[in-house]
Amino acid sequence: MTTVYITREAHFNAAHRLHNPSKSDEWNQSVFGTCNSPNSHGHNYILQVTVAGVPDPDTGYVIDLGVLKQVIHERVLRHLDHKNLNLDVPFLDGIIPSTENLVIAIWDQLVDSLPSGKLYHIRLHETPRNSAEYFGPNK
Amino acid sequence: MTTVYITREAHFNAAHRLHNPSKSDEWNQSVFGTCNSPNSHGHNYILQVTVAGVPDPDTGYVIDLGVLKQVIHERVLRHLDHKNLNLDVPFLDGIIPSTENLVIAIWDQLVDSLPSGKLYHIRLHETPRNSAEYFGPNK
Amino acid sequence: MTTVYITREAHFNAAHRLHNPSKSDEWNQSVFGTCNSPNSHGHNYILQVTVAGVPDPDTGYVIDLGVLKQVIHERVLRHLDHKNLNLDVPFLDGIIPSTENLVIAIWDQLVDSLPSGKLYHIRLHETPRNSAEYFGPNK
Amino acid sequence: MTTVYITREAHFNAAHRLHNPSKSDEWNQSVFGTCNSPNSHGHNYILQVTVAGVPDPDTGYVIDLGVLKQVIHERVLRHLDHKNLNLDVPFLDGIIPSTENLVIAIWDQLVDSLPSGKLYHIRLHETPRNSAEYFGPNK
Amino acid sequence: MTTVYITREAHFNAAHRLHNPSKSDEWNQSVFGTCNSPNSHGHNYILQVTVAGVPDPDTGYVIDLGVLKQVIHERVLRHLDHKNLNLDVPFLDGIIPSTENLVIAIWDQLVDSLPSGKLYHIRLHETPRNSAEYFGPNK
Amino acid sequence: MTTVYITREAHFNAAHRLHNPSKSDEWNQSVFGTCNSPNSHGHNYILQVTVAGVPDPDTGYVIDLGVLKQVIHERVLRHLDHKNLNLDVPFLDGIIPSTENLVIAIWDQLVDSLPSGKLYHIRLHETPRNSAEYFGPNK
Repeated sequence: MTTVYITREAHFNAAHRLHNPSKSDEWNQSVFGTCNSPNSHGHNYILQVTVAGVPDPDTGYVIDLGVLKQVIHERVLRHLDHKNLNLDVPFLDGIIPSTENLVIAIWDQLVDSLPSGKLYHIRLHETPRNSAEYFGPNK
Repeated sequence: MTTVYITREAHFNAAHRLHNPSKSDEWNQSVFGTCNSPNSHGHNYILQVTVAGVPDPDTGYVIDLGVLKQVIHERVLRHLDHKNLNLDVPFLDGIIPSTENLVIAIWDQLVDSLPSGKLYHIRLHETPRNSAEYFGPNK
Repeated sequence: MTTVYITREAHFNAAHRLHNPSKSDEWNQSVFGTCNSPNSHGHNYILQVTVAGVPDPDTGYVIDLGVLKQVIHERVLRHLDHKNLNLDVPFLDGIIPSTENLVIAIWDQLVDSLPSGKLYHIRLHETPRNSAEYFGPNK
Repeated sequence: MTTVYITREAHFNAAHRLHNPSKSDEWNQSVFGTCNSPNSHGHNYILQVTVAGVPDPDTGYVIDLGVLKQVIHERVLRHLDHKNLNLDVPFLDGIIPSTENLVIAIWDQLVDSLPSGKLYHIRLHETPRNSAEYFGPNK
Repeated sequence: MTTVYITREAHFNAAHRLHNPSKSDEWNQSVFGTCNSPNSHGHNYILQVTVAGVPDPDTGYVIDLGVLKQVIHERVLRHLDHKNLNLDVPFLDGIIPSTENLVIAIWDQLVDSLPSGKLYHIRLHETPRNSAEYFGPNK
Repeated sequence: MTTVYITREAHFNAAHRLHNPSKSDEWNQSVFGTCNSPNSHGHNYILQVTVAGVPDPDTGYVIDLGVLKQVIHERVLRHLDHKNLNLDVPFLDGIIPSTENLVIAIWDQLVDSLPSGKLYHIRLHETPRNSAEYFGPNK
């Protein structure tokens, strides 16, 4: 058995603010600094979704990347692209939109939505120099 | 005389919304689409500033790039990085923050602030696939 | 009057072969080398289209980049993406698909199709290290 | 013992077509879409080959990257660069050239050809947004 | 428990020469080729440092990336940036500055300096096409 | 007449030091800062050479990029790659190796060596964020 890992990259542009509403403004300012700026800032996020599986002998595909693109659009980009991550996204409600928390939330959006293969890894770039990765719970 | 063009790239992360307050919500929605999303979205902007001049024989420099970096920080990044371009920036007051309008406003911030050389060209990437350029008025 | 230059980047994947049918196989082999390989090879082409104009005061746009994206799709990508440039493209009929000849042909496809602004510059990357640029005839 | 993983990147430009000759044209069209375009399309493939090993105390090398470059050229690039992957490559005979199948075939070309270190991982980018990875059989 | 992996990228510019002083000039020349050039050459090194941990519920952070940036500066960049890796760096004394040996040395500089999370992975690019990775001893 | 501009990119890795030997150590230290570090530092330089011309009707080429690659190797890379720019390069003798001075020197190496087309533009990246451009004397 021969597992291959196939990755699709997607981009979305969003505003966010790092802020913990259960803490004081002073705490937020001192912990998050400029990322706590009250009227939000934003990023061109780059998302890489990796699916593991054995290639289908009829197609050579672990998963059709056109289908994976559509799943990412339907489950993730439709909700996040050109949005404010603190205010506009039901599945991020109550979550501080750090890159760490975003990869976990995006994993949960995708994990049961793949028609073939198994979700293996997610990477999210907030900037060219900052990124977070997640392999699922208990990994 | 030998003109050389020297470029320094800088990055800033900001939220914005394309919205013309003198027009109706319907007009804004239909013209700007998702870029009009009410709670803002955002970008990792990439700014390239090009200065023209004759290299100084003592240093080989048109302009010290460390100084140019400082000027860009003082005149541009300090005002735009981790900010909301519609709400937080005095020099963008009343300006729709399209990439086109931003390059003109950034030019005006920089043109009289260079200790040597002459401001020649500004390029601003809003996304990896969208950018605007400006060579100054009457060019 | 303030001219701003706005650029949209688009990608297409195509096969091609450098071959001059009016010349002998020996000539073609010796002039084009591996680029003359008989069953074609291919590239991920990167196209950058720059439009010049004065930003519209109501929108801040030289041209709506969503519209420019559609024009590029309709006039260029629809014909070239996932195609063989020697065999499948009517507007390339009889043209050796060098990067130089492609930028001229793409210019001609776009120059009269823009709803606002003026076509100013086209750049086409055949590989990350090879590209051609064109500013129109008589430039 | 201290294992270090060393990676060399190589590029090749090739044409291909996704097509299963044991299926009907209708099946191929509906499964592969534009990737089934009859006269082929193509890509600038980016190949990353990772070798694991303990650095040699005399050289600091797991493997001499100049040698690894030559092995990749001799075993892979010489066969694939400026070629049609469906028609020109003996070791791809009978294989649908999906990115998944290509990484397995490239692994098999390299695994017994390294003078030092052990082949650990292969990544192949078909486009900037699509890639496949392989760690060998039973991984 | 949910482990997330967070990466910060840093850049440094350094000169180096691959040379084993316990061997003859002929040996060095034949093993290292142009990398043995006597007056040094240099690189723009790209360093990626990955830290693993469970996000703090109050901040959403595995580690504050501003703090990680400072640790990388204090423990690594301050010693390597704009330096000669063979002559100027105490912690590289007696080490041939191959990319393999550099990732091990950088790991040792960082492993006990993180205020939260656990050092998981280091990648160092010597050029866009050459890089080394390390997961620590006994991995 | 239809001028097309064709660009070839080349890479070289070199050490350098910004130092004016006719000035005091204090002057050099204060003007050049860490770039004056006595044992040199280095860069992965990226060179883009643009040639202008009318495509040859028989080939579609302004200049054969394989030939341009060879000319760049023979006239530039052979002298600069894996070298120390202050000590090893006759055509840089007496020149402070700032990016500005390097583009002028590289222009002079190339301008009379092209078999077809006309040298139009040179860009040299010292780092991803710093670059210099030159269009020749009196431009």
